[in-house]
Amino acid sequence: MFRSNTCGELRLSNAGQTVTLAGWVQTIRKFGSITFIDLRDRYGITQLLFSESLNEQLEATPLGREFVLQVTGTVSERTNKNNQIPTGDIEILVNSFKILNKSATPPFTIQDDTDGGDDLRMKYRYLDLRRNPLRKNLELRYAVGRSARNYLHEQQFMDIETPFLIKSTPEGARDFVVPSRMNAGQFYALPQSPQTFKQLLMVSGYDRYYQVVKCFRDEDLRADRQPEFTQIDCEMAFVEQEDILQMFEGLIKRIFKDVKQIDYTETVARMSWEDAMWLYGNDKPDIRFDMKLCNLKKPGTVFLQKEDHSALVNGVDFKVFDEAETVLAVVAPGCSEYSRKQTDELTEWVKRPQIGMKGLVWIKYNTDGTLKSSVDKFYNEDRLRAIADASQAKPGDLILILAGQEERTRKAISELRLHLADSLGMRKPDEFKLLWVLDFPLFEYAEEELEGKGTIGRWVARHHPFTAPKPDHISIMIENDPVIRDRDNYLAHPYSGIKANAYDLVLNGNEIGGGSIRIYQRELQEKMFAALGMDAHEQQEKFGFLLGAFEYGAPPHGGIAFGFDRLCAILGGSESIRDFIAFPKNNSGRDVMLDAPGEIDEKQLKELFIQSTADRP
Amino acid sequence: MFRSNTCGELRLSNAGQTVTLAGWVQTIRKFGSITFIDLRDRYGITQLLFSESLNEQLEATPLGREFVLQVTGTVSERTNKNNQIPTGDIEILVNSFKILNKSATPPFTIQDDTDGGDDLRMKYRYLDLRRNPLRKNLELRYAVGRSARNYLHEQQFMDIETPFLIKSTPEGARDFVVPSRMNAGQFYALPQSPQTFKQLLMVSGYDRYYQVVKCFRDEDLRADRQPEFTQIDCEMAFVEQEDILQMFEGLIKRIFKDVKQIDYTETVARMSWEDAMWLYGNDKPDIRFDMKLCNLKKPGTVFLQKEDHSALVNGVDFKVFDEAETVLAVVAPGCSEYSRKQTDELTEWVKRPQIGMKGLVWIKYNTDGTLKSSVDKFYNEDRLRAIADASQAKPGDLILILAGQEERTRKAISELRLHLADSLGMRKPDEFKLLWVLDFPLFEYAEEELEGKGTIGRWVARHHPFTAPKPDHISIMIENDPVIRDRDNYLAHPYSGIKANAYDLVLNGNEIGGGSIRIYQRELQEKMFAALGMDAHEQQEKFGFLLGAFEYGAPPHGGIAFGFDRLCAILGGSESIRDFIAFPKNNSGRDVMLDAPGEIDEKQLKELFIQSTADRP
Repeated sequence: MFRSNTCGELRLSNAGQTVTLAGWVQTIRKFGSITFIDLRDRYGITQLLFSESLNEQLEATPLGREFVLQVTGTVSERTNKNNQIPTGDIEILVNSFKILNKSATPPFTIQDDTDGGDDLRMKYRYLDLRRNPLRKNLELRYAVGRSARNYLHEQQFMDIETPFLIKSTPEGARDFVVPSRMNAGQFYALPQSPQTFKQLLMVSGYDRYYQVVKCFRDEDLRADRQPEFTQIDCEMAFVEQEDILQMFEGLIKRIFKDVKQIDYTETVARMSWEDAMWLYGNDKPDIRFDMKLCNLKKPGTVFLQKEDHSALVNGVDFKVFDEAETVLAVVAPGCSEYSRKQTDELTEWVKRPQIGMKGLVWIKYNTDGTLKSSVDKFYNEDRLRAIADASQAKPGDLILILAGQEERTRKAISELRLHLADSLGMRKPDEFKLLWVLDFPLFEYAEEELEGKGTIGRWVARHHPFTAPKPDHISIMIENDPVIRDRDNYLAHPYSGIKANAYDLVLNGNEIGGGSIRIYQRELQEKMFAALGMDAHEQQEKFGFLLGAFEYGAPPHGGIAFGFDRLCAILGGSESIRDFIAFPKNNSGRDVMLDAPGEIDEKQLKELFIQSTADRP
Repeated sequence: MFRSNTCGELRLSNAGQTVTLAGWVQTIRKFGSITFIDLRDRYGITQLLFSESLNEQLEATPLGREFVLQVTGTVSERTNKNNQIPTGDIEILVNSFKILNKSATPPFTIQDDTDGGDDLRMKYRYLDLRRNPLRKNLELRYAVGRSARNYLHEQQFMDIETPFLIKSTPEGARDFVVPSRMNAGQFYALPQSPQTFKQLLMVSGYDRYYQVVKCFRDEDLRADRQPEFTQIDCEMAFVEQEDILQMFEGLIKRIFKDVKQIDYTETVARMSWEDAMWLYGNDKPDIRFDMKLCNLKKPGTVFLQKEDHSALVNGVDFKVFDEAETVLAVVAPGCSEYSRKQTDELTEWVKRPQIGMKGLVWIKYNTDGTLKSSVDKFYNEDRLRAIADASQAKPGDLILILAGQEERTRKAISELRLHLADSLGMRKPDEFKLLWVLDFPLFEYAEEELEGKGTIGRWVARHHPFTAPKPDHISIMIENDPVIRDRDNYLAHPYSGIKANAYDLVLNGNEIGGGSIRIYQRELQEKMFAALGMDAHEQQEKFGFLLGAFEYGAPPHGGIAFGFDRLCAILGGSESIRDFIAFPKNNSGRDVMLDAPGEIDEKQLKELFIQSTADRP
């Protein structure tokens, strides 16, 4: 062993002991004839004191930043104590030292606030990982994983590994594939998730399964996606939705407790998908703050059960609202005194291409009770007051209204809501609010161009094809023909109203987990596949093993998967999952440190029975 | 929740309680008007009693084997207790029942001794996994993994995930590759192990790393190999070999304790590679029994330090021994009275193609002290006695001698030793003996056909190119030219004698783990790559990131990896790793349940910039 202690463990009570430490040179400070060095390892920093007697050796073998150093010396009380670090009461009076390895000057400083740019730090990831913020992220990640495993173990879950070289059944996302050398012309796929395997394990009787497992999706990468990512993947048999909700809010509460020392004792909020869309404009609302939306005008065909306030905005010949599919308002509390500059900035903000609105209507509900708006021409004060009341605004508030096409407007107002909350300091990083979103639609409507047949309307599974409908809705699914004959009226199709036995767990506006009760009857599964446009042959070819398994006593079951990378990022107070992955890829799916992917030998290709069709440079 | 209790938990103390159980119908037995059903789940079996009042319903909805059943009833004391199972004191008097799902008749019986053949059970793996033996295997696997994680956690190791989509750097085994859609003509590789990543983590200062991780090797599959397999992968910084040996024998002892309730208190044996080869004929000896070999004649060029007994076999004009490169003996204790039939059988056994010897010489050391052999023509009794003494045989023993080419003969006698021990009951499945094998050669000699240059001799890394030589041997490596100029005399090359700072952990004759102290100096790593025939360009292209990392303060480090599948199999008393993997592949690398690998769409291939060159059927 190269050391007797780590750089984080010595205290005043160790004074007088002879110790050997090994670590990296963080800083070197010379004061006259003595030299102070901060020695760093994963556990902390310890100050070393080199007295004059070592100067000759220090000059013969000079030290530099990031050198790997081994020292032997005596633990001594410091005169100048540093109460910022746990070892700050002591220093090591060095008797002897040895350079275990030299270091070139790092391309950026190994400090909390480094001077290295993103690309440089990705290339030298092994140096970036030395920095405290990244070390803390990986430690948090390990703590989250360990906490989850402990909880699941105590709940009698079993970690069972599922295979990585499986069959390609592209549904939704694209598969990564792996050419087989032993089966000419054939390919494995890497799993997008262990979904069907965990269901087979339920059929096999392993009634509580979990796995912390890598998954793979070959999608175009957005800012915060990785081609390989990690899930905490869980499945249970003999359960209903309520059992799953309780089990897994328990899991997250345990992680809060173990990792963040937070007792999350309050009841986890629940909301239907329809309410989430109606009140927040999206299916993963951040409920750390209120600011519910007001649906001034809903599109005629959706939210059948909900009442809008269209009477308040109609009838004044304001074309922007009259022509809009939907009109939505959000209240910025206490912002009635925003200046022209500030409301202009908000307008510019919603006009950015990422948001894509044409403009913004504002109403100031002044503290004296009067109202003023950017549409005074069209709406008199009574009308404005009525809109303000409908929006539940109070004197002193600012009401912001967006109008346009349903989906875009809803998305925009929900972004605007977050933007306002951010600028008002309402999204506190140390506050955590959980929310179950329930009762998703089972199907989504999609249009597809078919060669020679023009556009057709079809159903896609909103979650995945293994999700069960609500028990009451099974018969709607079985008894109706899924074919959409009238595209303009797809909302009238009985399948539109079928709700899924599915649930998402949302934390501070981020979906951290999602799952469903699964179909476990062959007949219903076949109906689902058929609804998605798969004929019997295709069903058998792709999912014959699962349909077969359902014939031999499949139990009722359901599960959930948590995005481990994202969960860690949110618990770490960050939006970037990359900072919580040891060796992430960039937005082109490249590992710039390894310079991967790369070209491979013709010989390798030949053995795999494939040829590259790319132009060689 | 579909149940109040599992099928394994009710006891006499629960008598009188109303419970709901759910599970699978294991057996149905009718006695007159009452019906007994054994209901099974992961936790056990509970007997259900259906009284006459339920007969009508039972006839309307008949039950069958493997039906999924939910019953509510009262826990009652059994008159006929079954002390074979923990729930054997009670039964459930069923009040009501519901069939949750039906089952077709399974293609084989779900019992400990099933009637299903291997192929059928692989196809219906989800049914095979219901059987007790497989369930126990997966439970053992989970327990081993959990025990390992707990130990490593307590020792301050951190689980850090390394990437799966990496760069192809084929060394030794073939890589599985993954075509990149976003980088035309380029490929990722799946990791054969996280070797270089864990070394980078050491450079990053994460001084105790572990991971239970899938690895991939595209090799021709032998009986007990899988293209994807799991390693317990570990690495430590600031350590020497001794630190690693102690840390990881601690790990295995902990697993023994947690999983097998075995206190392994004895010192773990250690043996040099050379002694293992000399005394047991292989580098993973089973030391549960003695039966050391006697090297009657060693090949002239190896084992320079060892003395053979060639004087005893030479000089009698016995051509078989005279012409053999090596002559090795093993003693079968107490077998001097083997019949002609038995010695003939042993001769046939060594002549099997898997062993490949031409014959076998036997010497019976009779209990009366006389000797008799199959080569009495050549060796008089004095000679035979001398050979017997050299072999450390005692009266009553049978000495078996093989002669031939070095490698084959050594392999054969080591197989023969195991075969004899098996038939003599000396390999007890409930006895566990650990052994560290140390001081492996760093390099192995290999010959390669080079186009236009004929055969050349070259070095390959016996472990892998990152293994450090023994500290004393570093200078031999640095100071000598690795090129082999005299192929016939390669053993005289200084590199032949370089020993590696490597270690294998052997359990009952199986290598369960192996590792090494690593090179951490750029210069030495470059020398190693050069010795393996890599020029500077190739080094930079393949391992530039690692050589780069070694410039920025790489600490001394080393590690080990355990074959998780095999470790579980041995602890489970089995030779077959397949029985300890939930969804294994067959010997052609196929998952016969999924029917994977399979063909993929032309569209998918096109997106990936590849074409198949296989003949389409």
